[in-house]
Amino acid sequence: MRLYNSAVSGNCYKVRLLLAQLGLEYETVEMSVVDRSNRAEVLGELNPGLRVPTLVLDDGRPLAESNAILWYFGDGTQYVPEDAYERAQVLQWQFFEQYSHEPNIAVARFWKTYSGQPETFGRQRERLLAGGHAALDAMERHLDGRAFLVAEEYSLADISLYAYTHVAHEGDFDLDAYPAIRTWLERVAAQPGHVPIDA
Amino acid sequence: MRLYNSAVSGNCYKVRLLLAQLGLEYETVEMSVVDRSNRAEVLGELNPGLRVPTLVLDDGRPLAESNAILWYFGDGTQYVPEDAYERAQVLQWQFFEQYSHEPNIAVARFWKTYSGQPETFGRQRERLLAGGHAALDAMERHLDGRAFLVAEEYSLADISLYAYTHVAHEGDFDLDAYPAIRTWLERVAAQPGHVPIDA
Repeated sequence: MRLYNSAVSGNCYKVRLLLAQLGLEYETVEMSVVDRSNRAEVLGELNPGLRVPTLVLDDGRPLAESNAILWYFGDGTQYVPEDAYERAQVLQWQFFEQYSHEPNIAVARFWKTYSGQPETFGRQRERLLAGGHAALDAMERHLDGRAFLVAEEYSLADISLYAYTHVAHEGDFDLDAYPAIRTWLERVAAQPGHVPIDA
Repeated sequence: MRLYNSAVSGNCYKVRLLLAQLGLEYETVEMSVVDRSNRAEVLGELNPGLRVPTLVLDDGRPLAESNAILWYFGDGTQYVPEDAYERAQVLQWQFFEQYSHEPNIAVARFWKTYSGQPETFGRQRERLLAGGHAALDAMERHLDGRAFLVAEEYSLADISLYAYTHVAHEGDFDLDAYPAIRTWLERVAAQPGHVPIDA
């Protein structure tokens, strides 16, 4: 398998983390998240969204969108519940992640730490922090009294939300006010087979 | 079942369309997409994202995020493939919809047609149209020569992308340049049990 990857992308890290926990081997092709000029050339036939991660299976079939890739490999394993309602809850948190969390927290982190354009971060900082804090508030309320996001078991939902939450400080988010999130981050990092984002 | 609904929301329409095609009954509670001041009070215990649609099952359990709700009801029916790769492809298009399509096309439509703030649309028009056209370009390339988004069968992926694409003109998008999308929209609207957004 071949993973079109960015080492700093939380979306790519989700896939690397699950594949590590499943013990699956793959090669990577590193893509820049700053200079995207080769995206259409490299990914045009593989992923209509031209984003990373894009994965090419052993038989050549491509698959895109981090959370869809997680389901392809995770369904049928311990990381996806069998109950229909719990499966939908995993998806609920993953769609929340892509709509309400990533566009604020990952984008703030990108502009502040990885873009080389701190002035662009400055112009968007207030809006991104407000949106990101709303997402963190929602997670904090839900995780208060719970061990994991769904059904008290570590699942794809935790992988998806861990990816950018654990590096939120790189986007100027302070997790001091989020004790349930901090405990949950430690719990996720202690799972068997866990690998850090810079592994 | 109770659906917290907005009549004009494409995200809510996805759920109404699938439930109609499955012949399932439900009541609705209408929520405003302009005055959101009651969202925490009404949805706070049901949906951490405080968005519509939010669905409450007969036994009182809540479920949120339009595409997660579609999977809860659609999985095991003709609208979700059985093959693992095709199932992941359905998810790929649904995550594409929530990340690359809805935030441009639905948001442009909201500001232009439903917000009562046309000046806000004016300020964001250029950015939203650029993002929306990129999403439509990706769909057009994929649908050229295909009947449906995944596996040549009508699926949840088509429901999810149909919802805001078929009303994209309300956000100033002109579909004249997208013949494959226009043919696909007609094909989706001709499916058994189809209901329009204002049914």
